[in-house]
Amino acid sequence: MMISEQTIERIVNQVMAELTSSPSQSIPIELSARHVHLSQKDVDLLFGGKLTVERELSQPDQFLCKEKVRLIGPRGIIDRVAVLGPVRKQSQVEISLTDARTLGTETPLRQSGDINGTPGVVLASPHGIVSLEQGLIIAGRHIHMPEADAEQFRVSDGDLVAVHVKGERPVIMEDVLVRVSDNFSLAMHIDLDEGNGCGCINNTPAVIFEKEC
Amino acid sequence: MMISEQTIERIVNQVMAELTSSPSQSIPIELSARHVHLSQKDVDLLFGGKLTVERELSQPDQFLCKEKVRLIGPRGIIDRVAVLGPVRKQSQVEISLTDARTLGTETPLRQSGDINGTPGVVLASPHGIVSLEQGLIIAGRHIHMPEADAEQFRVSDGDLVAVHVKGERPVIMEDVLVRVSDNFSLAMHIDLDEGNGCGCINNTPAVIFEKEC
Repeated sequence: MMISEQTIERIVNQVMAELTSSPSQSIPIELSARHVHLSQKDVDLLFGGKLTVERELSQPDQFLCKEKVRLIGPRGIIDRVAVLGPVRKQSQVEISLTDARTLGTETPLRQSGDINGTPGVVLASPHGIVSLEQGLIIAGRHIHMPEADAEQFRVSDGDLVAVHVKGERPVIMEDVLVRVSDNFSLAMHIDLDEGNGCGCINNTPAVIFEKEC
Repeated sequence: MMISEQTIERIVNQVMAELTSSPSQSIPIELSARHVHLSQKDVDLLFGGKLTVERELSQPDQFLCKEKVRLIGPRGIIDRVAVLGPVRKQSQVEISLTDARTLGTETPLRQSGDINGTPGVVLASPHGIVSLEQGLIIAGRHIHMPEADAEQFRVSDGDLVAVHVKGERPVIMEDVLVRVSDNFSLAMHIDLDEGNGCGCINNTPAVIFEKEC
């Protein structure tokens, strides 16, 4: 029986990754619960113009707000959804596949910011209501990586990597997007479905297993 | 820089798996939603002694019942939970980690049947109430495999394998238990958290990637 080209390629990639990276350095997992990023216009409509800091998040300048919103879909609603600041150019709602079923919306898997053609959803607060025309996504998993770490791991912005996540139900997650910027601190973001699916919690160690492309 | 022993071992295993198995043959994924297996005594208490077939399941002789139960935990309840037949020696309740949070119970990851020392839960129906002393688990992922498939895949009952699950968010799941018996039909069972986490549905193809031990 022959060894497939795919397997040879995988093995070569694995050896190269082992030779060129530092596999012992682990990346902390951070679980992203459902949350909303708002434009200034939508902050005006929902909260009278201002977001209030509840606490700082691990990514520099990002914060959890005291304000919460209700998501309203065709089948169901989800209450007390976190709002993250600061304001962005476009509002964006990040939910899990489980949440999508609760709301009753076909929700695509997209990387943050890539919201053209995605479905909308209704946001409500005690102050107002906003019907977003688009912006509802299931966020693709990704690693926030400062430049120095990217050099050490020998990866670049936009690379896809496979990551060994060592939770109670260990998995190797493929197609994890690397995002490199000195505005980031090192962390791998996955959603609650992915976290529950592999039995991991915040700071479960993850290790880059191979570089895919 | 050296290649670690772990990597060499993984590569050797992978080549051996490729040489000795038929990696092109895929195993259908079946998503297990939360469900309950009941002892005859608990069927007596909850449903007056008899289970009614709603439909046959993929595994021979297994069936979904018309009867449903309510699960009652310290924090929350879950309604209309599926009952699977036929009756078993011991009642067992299989939920996801997400469900465990809804109920408010610390629920261990166990393989089916291995329930000694697990927490209990309260089951209710319009006919009665049962307080199980144990039997609440998050079921470990596993593959049901007839003898002929086991021969072809070169695996034995009790083996652990890593499985490439090719859903929308592809992963390699490690530590998947192989259960071999001619009472089974070929299928890999994962729970809804695992299914949602990797964006797969019933019959998403899965391929054995390597034999772990």
